[in-house]
Amino acid sequence: MPKPLLGRPVAKALSHDVRKTVETWKSRGVQPKLVTLLANDDHAASVYANQKKRIAERLGIQCDVIELPQQSDTEAIVRQIQALNDDPSVHGIMIEMPLAPSVDVQRVVGAIHALKDVDGLSPCHSFAKPTPEAALYPATPLACIRLLKHYGYQLKGADVTLVGCGQTVGMPLLHLLIAEGATVAACHEHTRDVRAHLRDSEIAIVAVGKGGLLGPDMVHDGLTVVDVGISQGENGDVQGDLAPEAAAKTKAYTPTPGGVGAVTTVQIFANLMHAMELQEAAGMV
Amino acid sequence: MPKPLLGRPVAKALSHDVRKTVETWKSRGVQPKLVTLLANDDHAASVYANQKKRIAERLGIQCDVIELPQQSDTEAIVRQIQALNDDPSVHGIMIEMPLAPSVDVQRVVGAIHALKDVDGLSPCHSFAKPTPEAALYPATPLACIRLLKHYGYQLKGADVTLVGCGQTVGMPLLHLLIAEGATVAACHEHTRDVRAHLRDSEIAIVAVGKGGLLGPDMVHDGLTVVDVGISQGENGDVQGDLAPEAAAKTKAYTPTPGGVGAVTTVQIFANLMHAMELQEAAGMV
Repeated sequence: MPKPLLGRPVAKALSHDVRKTVETWKSRGVQPKLVTLLANDDHAASVYANQKKRIAERLGIQCDVIELPQQSDTEAIVRQIQALNDDPSVHGIMIEMPLAPSVDVQRVVGAIHALKDVDGLSPCHSFAKPTPEAALYPATPLACIRLLKHYGYQLKGADVTLVGCGQTVGMPLLHLLIAEGATVAACHEHTRDVRAHLRDSEIAIVAVGKGGLLGPDMVHDGLTVVDVGISQGENGDVQGDLAPEAAAKTKAYTPTPGGVGAVTTVQIFANLMHAMELQEAAGMV
Repeated sequence: MPKPLLGRPVAKALSHDVRKTVETWKSRGVQPKLVTLLANDDHAASVYANQKKRIAERLGIQCDVIELPQQSDTEAIVRQIQALNDDPSVHGIMIEMPLAPSVDVQRVVGAIHALKDVDGLSPCHSFAKPTPEAALYPATPLACIRLLKHYGYQLKGADVTLVGCGQTVGMPLLHLLIAEGATVAACHEHTRDVRAHLRDSEIAIVAVGKGGLLGPDMVHDGLTVVDVGISQGENGDVQGDLAPEAAAKTKAYTPTPGGVGAVTTVQIFANLMHAMELQEAAGMV
């Protein structure tokens, strides 16, 4: 029987660590604080921002959501970010995507102070150093690595197939996996034979967002699948890239929902703790 | 018989293009200009800087080598770079590595204006966009791609094994290859079975710097090897990562010397032309 790798126990262990670090900061008179910028009227963005706020509060972290005026242009957003960069009481800055099409996303993202970029949005930060210790990386790729380690997987020397090489998840994962010592076969829409790569791998990380992309003929009972893909099925249900019939044929897999996503929501705050550590070393806290 | 993929014809074709673009700029009253900063007393660095100058002059490009005072610290180098950033007659800035151990390389590299970073040194620039058209990438990885295309190789969908994932060559190559649509198996020192990956690939790019790393038992007659590794043999000769006995068993290979290196020296100036185009679009020229 394949083993479901649940996100919840990983998130729980991580929450415990984060809460302890938060307490230490508080005992030193510092209230950890994240600011989320909401610069669009996207309903989902507002839902995410509020969800983040709830989790933050459970962890003892202050989370302010700043709603920017509807028509904010690049300059206005950059000015707002610079004010937050200069505010020593703010330890992390996040931007809820998507921004309005007229906004220069690269400029906005680049304006965030490297040590407050808890979402690892800027490639200057997330690709700057090969080790996860030295920089802030996006939460989802970090959550994948954390989940695998939690369940005892050894990444050094492991043969991993990565399916999906997008800028948000796939490419940062590629950097992280290589930094961990994994050999990675990077597959994507132009790959001729994804199955051949999966056949020779012990771990697959799938981040495409096409429900059921990995069918039962693609997997094998020596394969662990970390499923990062999220899409909506015809009935409106959230579904992963791994088809349920395929999950049954693996060695282990992360369920959707209940897999990586649960870890990601806490990883953001683990990033905030990491950011505060880097800020302290830089004399900013 | 394996086909040697010589760098010279590629470099010649590229030189022709660069020279034509230089002439167009000159006819508009603009003298293309590269500045190389020499901030150490390394003999090799000085040799490289002067070699670059000679090639530049053959292409009609002005190339100034600025020797910084021996004890220049990070601040002094950054100030020098900022002056060059602000000088509209300077279109490209390069730094001869290595810098002194006391210098903060990340800060120095990060100080170069994104559109003048012709060496693609900063990850903010080289990893910022997934397409080679949109940003300045390091010359060596670009030279590998150019050489393969010159000899008619189709990268979209191709199975490529990359051996060596260093920050200077391997990782930027990984980004470029994926942007070109290649499926890439990223191998390195922790990879258990490089041979298995090579067996399933049609192209290998090797960038390790260990002479003869790829022996005859690693290759096959369907494999094209692009050899980027450079090291010095016991007799002082320059040698590649592909052993000569292995080269004889491939479908095609780049010789060392006479392969990628010959293309790289011109690619730097192709980057300068690309940088000038981006600068013009940004109203800087």
